[in-house]
Amino acid sequence: MLLSYLAKISSCDFVGDDCDITGINSLENAHKGDISFLTNRHYAYLLLTTCASAVIIDKAPKDRDKSFLISDNPYLAVAHIVSLFHTAKKPVFGNKAAYIGANCTISDNANIYPTSYIGNGVKIGDNSIIYPGAVIDDDVEIGDDCVIFPNVSILRGSLVGNRVRIHAGTVIGSDGYGYAHDKNGKHIKILQIGIVEIEDDVEIGSNVSIDRAALGKTVIGKGTKIDNLVQIAHNVQIGSNCLLISQVGIAGSSSLGNNVILAGQVGILGHIKIDSGVQVGAKSGVHKSLKTGQYSGIPAIDHRKWLKVQALNKRLPEIVKKINRLEKEINHIKEAYDDND
Amino acid sequence: MLLSYLAKISSCDFVGDDCDITGINSLENAHKGDISFLTNRHYAYLLLTTCASAVIIDKAPKDRDKSFLISDNPYLAVAHIVSLFHTAKKPVFGNKAAYIGANCTISDNANIYPTSYIGNGVKIGDNSIIYPGAVIDDDVEIGDDCVIFPNVSILRGSLVGNRVRIHAGTVIGSDGYGYAHDKNGKHIKILQIGIVEIEDDVEIGSNVSIDRAALGKTVIGKGTKIDNLVQIAHNVQIGSNCLLISQVGIAGSSSLGNNVILAGQVGILGHIKIDSGVQVGAKSGVHKSLKTGQYSGIPAIDHRKWLKVQALNKRLPEIVKKINRLEKEINHIKEAYDDND
Amino acid sequence: MLLSYLAKISSCDFVGDDCDITGINSLENAHKGDISFLTNRHYAYLLLTTCASAVIIDKAPKDRDKSFLISDNPYLAVAHIVSLFHTAKKPVFGNKAAYIGANCTISDNANIYPTSYIGNGVKIGDNSIIYPGAVIDDDVEIGDDCVIFPNVSILRGSLVGNRVRIHAGTVIGSDGYGYAHDKNGKHIKILQIGIVEIEDDVEIGSNVSIDRAALGKTVIGKGTKIDNLVQIAHNVQIGSNCLLISQVGIAGSSSLGNNVILAGQVGILGHIKIDSGVQVGAKSGVHKSLKTGQYSGIPAIDHRKWLKVQALNKRLPEIVKKINRLEKEINHIKEAYDDND
Repeated sequence: MLLSYLAKISSCDFVGDDCDITGINSLENAHKGDISFLTNRHYAYLLLTTCASAVIIDKAPKDRDKSFLISDNPYLAVAHIVSLFHTAKKPVFGNKAAYIGANCTISDNANIYPTSYIGNGVKIGDNSIIYPGAVIDDDVEIGDDCVIFPNVSILRGSLVGNRVRIHAGTVIGSDGYGYAHDKNGKHIKILQIGIVEIEDDVEIGSNVSIDRAALGKTVIGKGTKIDNLVQIAHNVQIGSNCLLISQVGIAGSSSLGNNVILAGQVGILGHIKIDSGVQVGAKSGVHKSLKTGQYSGIPAIDHRKWLKVQALNKRLPEIVKKINRLEKEINHIKEAYDDND
Repeated sequence: MLLSYLAKISSCDFVGDDCDITGINSLENAHKGDISFLTNRHYAYLLLTTCASAVIIDKAPKDRDKSFLISDNPYLAVAHIVSLFHTAKKPVFGNKAAYIGANCTISDNANIYPTSYIGNGVKIGDNSIIYPGAVIDDDVEIGDDCVIFPNVSILRGSLVGNRVRIHAGTVIGSDGYGYAHDKNGKHIKILQIGIVEIEDDVEIGSNVSIDRAALGKTVIGKGTKIDNLVQIAHNVQIGSNCLLISQVGIAGSSSLGNNVILAGQVGILGHIKIDSGVQVGAKSGVHKSLKTGQYSGIPAIDHRKWLKVQALNKRLPEIVKKINRLEKEINHIKEAYDDND
Repeated sequence: MLLSYLAKISSCDFVGDDCDITGINSLENAHKGDISFLTNRHYAYLLLTTCASAVIIDKAPKDRDKSFLISDNPYLAVAHIVSLFHTAKKPVFGNKAAYIGANCTISDNANIYPTSYIGNGVKIGDNSIIYPGAVIDDDVEIGDDCVIFPNVSILRGSLVGNRVRIHAGTVIGSDGYGYAHDKNGKHIKILQIGIVEIEDDVEIGSNVSIDRAALGKTVIGKGTKIDNLVQIAHNVQIGSNCLLISQVGIAGSSSLGNNVILAGQVGILGHIKIDSGVQVGAKSGVHKSLKTGQYSGIPAIDHRKWLKVQALNKRLPEIVKKINRLEKEINHIKEAYDDND
């Protein structure tokens, strides 16, 4: 593909000579003929040594020995250009290659791989792909252009929108964790009779667990992206365009607004409300509802305050030494004073 | 179902008019004809606006515009009543719909779904259900009334009691993580030749990992309930009626007594003994054996002490300011004293 | 097997009478005829009560009522001896018992279990075993003597070396978590077109997620052992002989040297470099690159310093009391001084 064509596709300004681009790679690994990108100024020094024939960047350097595509949002340009270099093989199994239950409505151009299982009353839309080993339980509805990867389990009654991608090993609609307790400390199961609803354009990583509601729905809002090994408990409500990084856990009935970012290994207690735009730092534990802002720590507090507290916490040994020194000085003063008296 | 019938089934006192109940829902989402429940006084204000025709509660309010079922333990009453509104479809596959190995003993009224796999020498009891994609390896024994959800893997020799539910994607009997180390820092595998034993009435969430013992057994005690994405290492011994919330990890050879509660994302080091009745707060890290009590923190300490420490920790910036102020005052006193001398 | 034979196989010195050994077990659970082992002096008291006929140990006790195998590295001797007592059943399915795609190269003595799925262009080496429910996607290459456990998903183009063991439910090659963001806060997927490469002698636990690279490779180095429920993000580079304990998470593009040990539930931020030999304590969070050494805490600091800080942190209530006492004394001195003036 001509570099000038890539510039056009990705709405970039084009600086330098046109040439034929045959691949995309990182600055370190690019060969002649590859296009690369700089999205973090920290790595700008790699521009001096890269073999890439062209680089996507936010501002062209003064000395240029190669061509540049200039964009206010280079990473977004990368997103557009990478997709041009990827040719997914079209599966050819059709919609009858697996075990298919009764009363299903499956688009003629859906692709259901062998060794997957489709229960009764299932609906699957146009161009959706069900990979091998996936289990689509009774009465599940999956929209158009979805990709359900191998060994995913989507349980009874779950609703999946359009353009949803669910990665391998993930479970949608396992029972919520709900028990009453009798006098003897025995746990009595509350049957979980709600469902999970996943809205359009959601992507869910591998080995994620999303529990069905006790009653009603657990909801994952439009455009939200969930990383691997995340836990979403029953009746959680997640807004649109949230980012939940790997190994996050959200306890029952908590709700997130829109564009919330939870970094890796964050935990959110149950029955909590997280406002739109909240960002929580990695490994934090959220014990109470949060207004829009940035938070960190266990329990999570204002992120800037947490930075200060952590810095001082590390200095505790010297702080305690200082206190002990002050104590001695006070004793010294008191003795001197007593002597004087 | 008549409300008076529900009262009888759930051993509740009945206050108000009898009526026909057609569903159960939360106070917020209930419609006319639904029964609902109040198990947390924090949400009592919803009683004013709910459309529910009846509410399960611990104490009837004075002004009543609807009927109430009164119980000392409303949540337990909910558990009984929800089950009346849920009619699980009876599977009809029988015991030969999947790949079945040699020398198996499978009850005539077990249900083995298509695309599941049953190895050699497997025993499966009455009314147990093996969902699609589940793999039951050689010599596994599963009791009566168990439900093994899709894509669960139960590996060689594992023993599963009666009325056990294992949710999708969970692995029972993966190898323990045990290596000896040679002089060159190379890790030499210790073959893991023990098993996992799961006692009666255990429920295990989705995407859980429970490792087989190196030698002997990893044991999950009667009535214990395990949430999603929990890690149980080799030779761990868990007592009865414990609650292990999501993303908990327990390292090798540690033991828990009965009725232990580990909140979300707790980690327990190896070779540790947790007494019966211990409760550990979310995200805590347990580095040593614990006597009965409540604990929090990394490392975990007495929960009340942890609350105090956390409160002070957040105040470190002002505490350090105070120390600096005291230092100045002391210097001031010393100077004044020197001047006076 | 004769004890003298076990001594020879495991390169141990042999002290005491020869006898026939029929099993191996822990000191607590051993019966007459079993060999056992003491690898942690903390449990030496069990030598007094064990029924084992022989014990592997680093130094024979003075009073001996049984036989001993003496080794500088008893745990390594255990590794050798356990394997003698384990006779894995040889599977007999051959290489055509499952769905097999086009253009595959599968060794005649590989074993592919029923209900597994092999895509197009797959290569599987000598003696490798693919258990039921495993999905081997298009163009995956698996070397010799590998074991792929039930319901594992190895996705398109992944490369797996020789003698690799991958436990049940694990996902190799799910998409990395990479999105550009447009002006409206919408997340635009960066197609993930790289692969995962797993080198020889790696073992990976159950329900692990290893993401494919955005571009290039995610690499797991030779001899590295990964425990259950671990998350490895796209473009992570892991050296040889590392140990990653359960529930560890490593964010995108971070790299580990050789012989790194990450304890349970550790989190590593993205774009970080961890030097060879680094050890990080359980539940720590690593926010920056680490030179060889031991680290703990959130954020992780030098382990010894962390121990001091934690000890002082727990003492914050008394430290604050002391500060308040000193403040009173200072005020007292000031008043006395003022009175004197």
